[in-house]
Amino acid sequence: MGLRVAVAGATGAVGREMLRILEERAFPAQEVVALASERSEGKALPYRGGEIRVGRLAHGAFEGVDLALFSAGAPRSLEFAPSAVKAGAVVVDNSSAFRMDPGVPLVVPEVNPDALRAHTGIIANPNCSTIQMVAVLKPLHDAARLRRVVVSTYQAVSGAGQAAVDELERQVEARARGQESRPAKFPHAIAFNCLPQIDAFLEEGDTKEERKMVNETRKIMGLPDLPVSATCVRVPVVNAHAESVNAEFERPITPERARELLSRAPGVRVADDPAQSVYPMPILASGKDPVYVGRVRRDPSAPHALNLWIVADNLRKGAALNAVQIGEMLLAKGLLRVKAA
Amino acid sequence: MGLRVAVAGATGAVGREMLRILEERAFPAQEVVALASERSEGKALPYRGGEIRVGRLAHGAFEGVDLALFSAGAPRSLEFAPSAVKAGAVVVDNSSAFRMDPGVPLVVPEVNPDALRAHTGIIANPNCSTIQMVAVLKPLHDAARLRRVVVSTYQAVSGAGQAAVDELERQVEARARGQESRPAKFPHAIAFNCLPQIDAFLEEGDTKEERKMVNETRKIMGLPDLPVSATCVRVPVVNAHAESVNAEFERPITPERARELLSRAPGVRVADDPAQSVYPMPILASGKDPVYVGRVRRDPSAPHALNLWIVADNLRKGAALNAVQIGEMLLAKGLLRVKAA
Repeated sequence: MGLRVAVAGATGAVGREMLRILEERAFPAQEVVALASERSEGKALPYRGGEIRVGRLAHGAFEGVDLALFSAGAPRSLEFAPSAVKAGAVVVDNSSAFRMDPGVPLVVPEVNPDALRAHTGIIANPNCSTIQMVAVLKPLHDAARLRRVVVSTYQAVSGAGQAAVDELERQVEARARGQESRPAKFPHAIAFNCLPQIDAFLEEGDTKEERKMVNETRKIMGLPDLPVSATCVRVPVVNAHAESVNAEFERPITPERARELLSRAPGVRVADDPAQSVYPMPILASGKDPVYVGRVRRDPSAPHALNLWIVADNLRKGAALNAVQIGEMLLAKGLLRVKAA
Repeated sequence: MGLRVAVAGATGAVGREMLRILEERAFPAQEVVALASERSEGKALPYRGGEIRVGRLAHGAFEGVDLALFSAGAPRSLEFAPSAVKAGAVVVDNSSAFRMDPGVPLVVPEVNPDALRAHTGIIANPNCSTIQMVAVLKPLHDAARLRRVVVSTYQAVSGAGQAAVDELERQVEARARGQESRPAKFPHAIAFNCLPQIDAFLEEGDTKEERKMVNETRKIMGLPDLPVSATCVRVPVVNAHAESVNAEFERPITPERARELLSRAPGVRVADDPAQSVYPMPILASGKDPVYVGRVRRDPSAPHALNLWIVADNLRKGAALNAVQIGEMLLAKGLLRVKAA
């Protein structure tokens, strides 16, 4: 096929995961180009048994690139994604830069694949916490129509990058020695603590992360007025986000029916046998592809309400895997070309 | 006064905290008697600069005791609390044994002190997760009338006893050495994980802990039909439980008004300055008396709804402190005597 794929931000936690997933899934790329900031230029990254050299993320770096996966932060996406599109690449961007742009599809392949058809060069990859929630809510919504969602998250430190993982481990080890290790990446200690802050605060008291979960869920589900309340909390878990979701529906839906629908849903795995202590957990979901759901039970406190416990690897399905799946779907649908904007 | 106070289960995590709190608050006891199972008989526990010897928890151990604080588990409360009452003591029981008994007051002194008047020898101390939630919800309910509550908890391992704390620390240290430490107290590893199971599962898929939060909240608030949905999750935190609470009200209530009411509420401390990264956290609440509340914000997904983040020391306000406060209130109200049943 002669496909050239670029990974912008290749040395970050998500970028490295993108390379691993391209390899694991045997993405049909003839060449993979790794790009990063000046600081990482020249580094070697493992790929398909060999290694690839990191090139500099620059305006001229996208010549001949067909697909560019961006995970270098919103400012770099804003700066370089248009250059990639101009050079003829389709961009799948993991940052928040373009997600709420009405002209940019925001896609979870299992949920709204058809949104891809309207792309004009850039497709946005949703926020990790949103992806795993909508993957589970979509099949239930199709059956019973969502009325309101209240979610509280238990988010892993890997979502804040490798430096955050190192910080958690440093703090845990310091405590074992009876010492203290000051927070740097987070505003407070994360070891043996819960931080009810992810990203910056907005005026009404929500964090950006919470606002993302509300707005992105609405856009992906095509329900611009869906009532959603989100509380996002960082917990001392290395990898994989968990979510306690309370979902109210317009029509009746039993836990049995929900489990049945979810067991057939693409990308979703039901793990729900409480009597055997079987339910989704971060240490089980980490390194895995599916979105796990369990503890599916009726909530008698509202009509047609269910409680759900949803866990997924935030670096994989929450970021890198979803981006690569978008690439696969673009290929399959013949959409790997830039339409005139 | 010549008051004799017994602590049954004195060697456990909550029992030890009870002794500390009796001492800290200079509870007017002439004598404190420490009782525990045969295994701990004869042990010395620190109290008021000296130490007290642990006696055996037995039917005859309550002669001359005026107030008996029980924290020895439900089976022992069921077995020995009636003997204590027969001997003339008033029992404050921290187990779940009598909580839902219609003849037994279930009391949080800041919320329903008047329920104490009806006691016939036993007063139940509520579940830790319930206490901190109702302490915050009560003043808001008085102002705007609760309509529905959805809570997700982030519970510390100390709630499962000292063995659970040791288990978390063992697992964390094993991981630092690249090893693994098998779970014993919990069904799965708790280090770097979230366990959506606290206590055993019931038929409808709720855990006992979740059911307690529903039933006890209703009883303490005197709202037998209040719609409450609870999801209880164990997180790798040593001490202090956190709760993400979504509360819907019948009447309008702004976050500003809620903060104002809460800042005047007994036993509650508002910590809510997100711009300065000020919000309640387990590592700050541990070892402290108040119930901390922050991240008070409007939830536009339902009429008159608020989100709240509530954190308290589960061994103190969630157990030992609340029990001692009940003792203080019994004294103050002249209720430290057993009425005819």
